[in-house]
Amino acid sequence: MPFIGVLGGMGPAATVDFLDKIVQLTPAKCDQEHLPWIVSGIPQIFDRSQAILGDGPNPFSQLASGVDFLNRAGAGVIVIPCNSSHHWYDQLLTRSRAPILHIAETAVYAISPCSHQRVAILATRGTMSSGFYQQALAKRQLVHASISTILQDRVDRCISLVKAAEIDEAADILSNVAQMSVAQGVTNIILACTELSVAASFHGVLPAVFVNSSLELAAAAVRYGLERKWNHLGNLTRDILP
Amino acid sequence: MPFIGVLGGMGPAATVDFLDKIVQLTPAKCDQEHLPWIVSGIPQIFDRSQAILGDGPNPFSQLASGVDFLNRAGAGVIVIPCNSSHHWYDQLLTRSRAPILHIAETAVYAISPCSHQRVAILATRGTMSSGFYQQALAKRQLVHASISTILQDRVDRCISLVKAAEIDEAADILSNVAQMSVAQGVTNIILACTELSVAASFHGVLPAVFVNSSLELAAAAVRYGLERKWNHLGNLTRDILP
Repeated sequence: MPFIGVLGGMGPAATVDFLDKIVQLTPAKCDQEHLPWIVSGIPQIFDRSQAILGDGPNPFSQLASGVDFLNRAGAGVIVIPCNSSHHWYDQLLTRSRAPILHIAETAVYAISPCSHQRVAILATRGTMSSGFYQQALAKRQLVHASISTILQDRVDRCISLVKAAEIDEAADILSNVAQMSVAQGVTNIILACTELSVAASFHGVLPAVFVNSSLELAAAAVRYGLERKWNHLGNLTRDILP
Repeated sequence: MPFIGVLGGMGPAATVDFLDKIVQLTPAKCDQEHLPWIVSGIPQIFDRSQAILGDGPNPFSQLASGVDFLNRAGAGVIVIPCNSSHHWYDQLLTRSRAPILHIAETAVYAISPCSHQRVAILATRGTMSSGFYQQALAKRQLVHASISTILQDRVDRCISLVKAAEIDEAADILSNVAQMSVAQGVTNIILACTELSVAASFHGVLPAVFVNSSLELAAAAVRYGLERKWNHLGNLTRDILP
């Protein structure tokens, strides 16, 4: 049976947060009405941001091995709840039989284009340097509001804290960054790193201005699966996996 | 590289809660220090409790297909965060190359044998009828305190509510069942259904008397992986999956 293939583990807490969103967004009264998913949660994949910046080994073959695994298992669609990994999106898509939903496309699509909007991107330095979020904004005629180096330092710190399970402190930093950005005229803040979604869900930190890339990708995956009735009992076979 | 294979999806919210516990219990400062896991989260598997009671189709071949899948992917150990599924534990273990940690063994092992203890088991009717928890208690010389039919009805309702994402009401019911049990002289309450772990984590419901089977299985899986250094960078290869 087809399922949502999740290339996760980058990082593990962000993957759990993403899966939680998939479950919460699925209307279901019993197990069998939920959507099927298989998750590769291998956190040993080389640091994506460092690799993009030229400061570490290239994780592409590890990411590709995860995509190949999910395809072999029979994934009907693949999602990668790690923004930085989307630096290699085109190369991964080329080798994948299953479509791969693009996290930046789903996040940016959640913002209605409107002339007065100024959109900040909170992400790893690797994602910022890669430029795919800026391109996705430009495609939708949305104005990108750069954040200062000081705020970027705080975003980096927030991401590291989530990976080290220091969610309390991470949430405080995210709240501070959001307040500073709004004070500088930002109207929408894309949480363009899945660790930031974990920090944001800790206690509501200015949620009105946040566009959560993890939530938008989960919503897109759920829509994809529900439209194809992957949670429909009719798909049930005794041997559920190849 | 070896990883923790998780046969999940029964139900999906319980699987997410279990994975959250794995991540929280792992001491790690960055992604790469976390343990690798692969999760089969196929909720279309036939209802385990109904099957044990003779009220529904047998899920064994579906469970077996999940165990086979995780073995083929290279699991170093398998865990099943669904108590009722352990009715088929012996048959699943026979076909598995990887060891399968038994959720009831890990839960019961968390209770120090002590003559005055009276242990209640909150579980599906299938798990209760199967008897593997009662046997695990007996093996440790622990006294099983049966709960009334009225309380069992409430446990059933609590489990269904979690599967339908009505966590608020489920938590209230669990709190009530726990209070009634303690009033009747129970000293330890095993949450012997992984849905009950979701309800228990909603807002601290008499946590002192709870033995959480989901938490104990996660702790056992983390110990298993850490002892074998599966989170050690030395295990890293470029092709992470077969």
